[in-house]
Amino acid sequence: MGERVAILGASGYTGGELVRLIAGHPSMEIAALSANSKAGLAMSTVFPHLRHLDLPRLTTIEETDLSGVDLVFCALPHATSQAVIAGLPEGLKVVDLSADFRLRDPEAYRRWYGKEHAAPELQTEAVYGLTEFYRDEIRAARLVAGTGCNAATGQYALRPLISAGVIDLDRIVIDLKAAVSGAGRSLKENLLHAELSEGAHAYAAGGTHRHLGEFDQEFSALAGREVRVQFTPHLIPANRGILATVYVDGNPAEVHAALAAAYAGEEFVLVLPEGELPSIRHVRGSNYCHIGVVDDRIPGRAVIVAVLDNLAKGSSGQALQNANLMLGLDEGAGLRGVPVFP
Amino acid sequence: MGERVAILGASGYTGGELVRLIAGHPSMEIAALSANSKAGLAMSTVFPHLRHLDLPRLTTIEETDLSGVDLVFCALPHATSQAVIAGLPEGLKVVDLSADFRLRDPEAYRRWYGKEHAAPELQTEAVYGLTEFYRDEIRAARLVAGTGCNAATGQYALRPLISAGVIDLDRIVIDLKAAVSGAGRSLKENLLHAELSEGAHAYAAGGTHRHLGEFDQEFSALAGREVRVQFTPHLIPANRGILATVYVDGNPAEVHAALAAAYAGEEFVLVLPEGELPSIRHVRGSNYCHIGVVDDRIPGRAVIVAVLDNLAKGSSGQALQNANLMLGLDEGAGLRGVPVFP
Amino acid sequence: MGERVAILGASGYTGGELVRLIAGHPSMEIAALSANSKAGLAMSTVFPHLRHLDLPRLTTIEETDLSGVDLVFCALPHATSQAVIAGLPEGLKVVDLSADFRLRDPEAYRRWYGKEHAAPELQTEAVYGLTEFYRDEIRAARLVAGTGCNAATGQYALRPLISAGVIDLDRIVIDLKAAVSGAGRSLKENLLHAELSEGAHAYAAGGTHRHLGEFDQEFSALAGREVRVQFTPHLIPANRGILATVYVDGNPAEVHAALAAAYAGEEFVLVLPEGELPSIRHVRGSNYCHIGVVDDRIPGRAVIVAVLDNLAKGSSGQALQNANLMLGLDEGAGLRGVPVFP
Amino acid sequence: MGERVAILGASGYTGGELVRLIAGHPSMEIAALSANSKAGLAMSTVFPHLRHLDLPRLTTIEETDLSGVDLVFCALPHATSQAVIAGLPEGLKVVDLSADFRLRDPEAYRRWYGKEHAAPELQTEAVYGLTEFYRDEIRAARLVAGTGCNAATGQYALRPLISAGVIDLDRIVIDLKAAVSGAGRSLKENLLHAELSEGAHAYAAGGTHRHLGEFDQEFSALAGREVRVQFTPHLIPANRGILATVYVDGNPAEVHAALAAAYAGEEFVLVLPEGELPSIRHVRGSNYCHIGVVDDRIPGRAVIVAVLDNLAKGSSGQALQNANLMLGLDEGAGLRGVPVFP
Repeated sequence: MGERVAILGASGYTGGELVRLIAGHPSMEIAALSANSKAGLAMSTVFPHLRHLDLPRLTTIEETDLSGVDLVFCALPHATSQAVIAGLPEGLKVVDLSADFRLRDPEAYRRWYGKEHAAPELQTEAVYGLTEFYRDEIRAARLVAGTGCNAATGQYALRPLISAGVIDLDRIVIDLKAAVSGAGRSLKENLLHAELSEGAHAYAAGGTHRHLGEFDQEFSALAGREVRVQFTPHLIPANRGILATVYVDGNPAEVHAALAAAYAGEEFVLVLPEGELPSIRHVRGSNYCHIGVVDDRIPGRAVIVAVLDNLAKGSSGQALQNANLMLGLDEGAGLRGVPVFP
Repeated sequence: MGERVAILGASGYTGGELVRLIAGHPSMEIAALSANSKAGLAMSTVFPHLRHLDLPRLTTIEETDLSGVDLVFCALPHATSQAVIAGLPEGLKVVDLSADFRLRDPEAYRRWYGKEHAAPELQTEAVYGLTEFYRDEIRAARLVAGTGCNAATGQYALRPLISAGVIDLDRIVIDLKAAVSGAGRSLKENLLHAELSEGAHAYAAGGTHRHLGEFDQEFSALAGREVRVQFTPHLIPANRGILATVYVDGNPAEVHAALAAAYAGEEFVLVLPEGELPSIRHVRGSNYCHIGVVDDRIPGRAVIVAVLDNLAKGSSGQALQNANLMLGLDEGAGLRGVPVFP
Repeated sequence: MGERVAILGASGYTGGELVRLIAGHPSMEIAALSANSKAGLAMSTVFPHLRHLDLPRLTTIEETDLSGVDLVFCALPHATSQAVIAGLPEGLKVVDLSADFRLRDPEAYRRWYGKEHAAPELQTEAVYGLTEFYRDEIRAARLVAGTGCNAATGQYALRPLISAGVIDLDRIVIDLKAAVSGAGRSLKENLLHAELSEGAHAYAAGGTHRHLGEFDQEFSALAGREVRVQFTPHLIPANRGILATVYVDGNPAEVHAALAAAYAGEEFVLVLPEGELPSIRHVRGSNYCHIGVVDDRIPGRAVIVAVLDNLAKGSSGQALQNANLMLGLDEGAGLRGVPVFP
Repeated sequence: MGERVAILGASGYTGGELVRLIAGHPSMEIAALSANSKAGLAMSTVFPHLRHLDLPRLTTIEETDLSGVDLVFCALPHATSQAVIAGLPEGLKVVDLSADFRLRDPEAYRRWYGKEHAAPELQTEAVYGLTEFYRDEIRAARLVAGTGCNAATGQYALRPLISAGVIDLDRIVIDLKAAVSGAGRSLKENLLHAELSEGAHAYAAGGTHRHLGEFDQEFSALAGREVRVQFTPHLIPANRGILATVYVDGNPAEVHAALAAAYAGEEFVLVLPEGELPSIRHVRGSNYCHIGVVDDRIPGRAVIVAVLDNLAKGSSGQALQNANLMLGLDEGAGLRGVPVFP
């Protein structure tokens, strides 16, 4: 029995990760899998690690039978998603993993993504999918927009501090280190093993990364004024994981207290004892986010480090957590796998 | 409720992996954790990836309270294990992950491990823990000896072929590539990241690796005559995974058929279609073993490739699978986690 | 002054490696660099690690001015090379790094590469570029064909043994582990960092890899009879390096003696003391090849391990060594850089 | 002939790197190599990548014959170095690679290193070894103190900006990503491949890293007032390389201009065109430092990224560059090896 779901765009890393997580879900069943470029193939051809699972064959989106489906995960590329979702049966619940519905403001979408949105009415309807902060809206939503994985990491570190008013909103630096799977399975020279292994570099530096649109939207809404952070993402030679080092002006004890209070009842976001910092190797493959705070030697400044697995808590795990809420299930179902270390 | 287990030697990688797997087990509970060198510490200090779990504090073996414990996993170093197990309450079920009880013959033990065995009577009693081939004996056993991770990989590829009589017993070459976690958490120069990353080397070459003792014992018993394989392990710059490339003289179709037949009903050992070969990245973090066969261009020769995760199916996963059998539980409980890719 | 050289196809890894090596050459100067797909770009755009060098801008092959050029390195893709070289000024010395001229027999070329050769007369003229074994022919050659990097590694381990008649020609297994840069800078899914890192797999197994054409040609010629080896290459998660583990039937002492004798006077091929085995991390970035031999426990069998850097000794280093010979220069000029470890 | 040098502490990574670089030096000869823990061994046993070089056998420091030696490189552990150097023949030139003589102020040494200095008079005499900024003093020095590798990277990015007065001295954040070889060849759990590979973490965060002593000393001296930066180093899964991302308040164009002007005549420090950022993979194995600047979207803020190879420009390359100056040789001799990519 259980809830029946479909995954559109199942041949990318987030699609494969959704299958992995749902396979361990006690009451969710995969009814359909689509991937236009791989239609007709068995999922085990595209992802041999799923070989032992009994999964539907990949179909094109057009062919995909959504009758009897309770919820659709949409793991399609940015810009493709909005058109597909607009064409889905009315009333079908949707969790979108693309960037298409993260920004509520059409003008902001245009600025960060360089084009008009194809479904502006859905843009307004969509609920921003950062589970711990939009839980009630997500429960009631028809369409939830998965957050950017970098955007999620930075927000876990900063939202409670902005809400609590314990930091200077004009002096926020997010220096982020991201593993390579966040860039997806696309064929780009700088994602080749020979280029990336033993490398490390900043990209989209100086305030040009699209996830800044999410920071701007969310932090400004929280603060009730415009907030602009500095944000430099770096690619590091690892497969999974994001580590955000966040520099703030604020009393470190207050910073730690605000985070501890905000996440006190949360199953998947853990605040470490003051002075301890986390590592991406301790959340790999899991839905957990670890956050630590240290005092800087300069009085009145604190350093926060937040880590999560970009494919899990940063995208597919978040998507499943939201789907659980939308379907009235146990929020953590399928998400309690322990991190894989080493 | 459920079964209560203890892990002795919980601060090494196999100990941590046992905790990870058991945390997802529907009816097993961790009652005690020991680690002499880290006694007094919280498990989350030793393994921060287990931070969210509610686990007993580490104790010394002597302090460990085993009352009410149904089964002990013994993840102690080689040679330590035999003395500790000899001192455990009679009748307590034990799954040993060390090398101490793998060889049944005291003389073979002396030859490969360079010392007298301290508990030869237990050596005779212990059942060899290669689940798929000793299932009935394991069900009935009090003491099960976990196999070597390399030894397991080679045996999955070869046992059905020896049993079926489809290969030349005098022409078997096992060329094995092992990720580094198999060497444990011990501090050795050649396990440093700076040494191993971007490196690769053979070790214990030419027939000196101790897992050969297991190959000799098992293959000779199966064949009813002495069998001596060639075996060269190599260390490769990866964390988890063993890939064994096995060269045999035999008809490739018969080789494939023998493997397919042997594992037809097995949940965790999968034989790929003829001509397909597996990769360690597709079994990472899981209890699955994938096996493929290709024809060599030289008629009458075949190449078999078997892969598994050394910490899971190669040690802690195997141990849990055996414990499930010994406790009368579902054999695959806690072991169905999908491989983590990428 | 010095010798003036051009590199055609300078935007791939072997092209970049040639520039790196030639920059340290005492008497060689780069007169022209071509790369059709990147024509017009500065070399520092394509390869920022060459930023400090004063290099000619990239041109198309057609635009490339070869007047005053003494020798051309042709680092073009397979099949492209033969047409380009056929059109070069007569008498211009050429070192080709592609596969196009490795096989002397048109029929063998057709079988392994699946098409007719476009310049069969050059195919006959070309000298096989394994320096230590074709030194005199290379000195006198106009066109030298660089060997396959895997083919070079296997031959360094085996040629002296075949020549000395100390091994069984029908029982040769070459199990090879190759770092990823050997696959070039091409955009393929299985070369992505997220796929390859923490992975390892066999490819072109069972006797289908094209470098077998070279083994067949060279070993058969040496032995005076047809020799067919078994050869399984594996991709491992490292950037540079090839490690070949070679299994032979032969007396280990004789095997070691034959190798030691063959390379006694060689600057770049070093035979380790009996019982020691090499690692790819000890030849990284260099023109050195290290070879070790161990006895197998089965009498009359030996294991040989040979390592080299696929981009250096396996291709661009070999190419420069051959160019030095063709130009009458010190054979080792520009090639004495010490391996980079760690 | 040439200059004769000795290396004390030759069995660590910086010692091995010195040998590698000096092997390519046109007029420097290694007269002696010491390593107390490995005395009696051949260098090729400790570092097989040096196998082809003809090197003196390792001796204890006491046994080392320094007669006829022109300069000593001291690559000993921190705290050991000061006693050894105090005991060397008066007048012998010394380049120290340890932390012992980096801080001129005994009180600062005590604060950062937790003990009294054993040779305070040498502490005063020693010249700080950041070549481009202390060139004249180094030429005349008897004892030069190699800088911290992290400290060098941060200073290359910041010194010209402090000197030019183009940034706010109270708002400097250095977020640094360091490869693992900087931690040396010491046996620590968090340097194991299985721990570090696929990991990444901050360490010595919040202003506790000892290289801050160097930043404080140097930046305050430059500015003529106390300067305190924020500095968070992170360990990333790579072997060689440091990438420092530096956040400053200042006009980006002025920042770029100040850097470009400062390094206009420098052979080894290259400033990239505005808007381009460097990667550690483009300086690997070399003495080059690449620096880039981008505008932040927040007016009046700039992001600077500086990269170098911690073992080369960050320690052993710097040491050789300084030795060349002290011996009156070509400053760049032995240091022009092109970075190894990929």
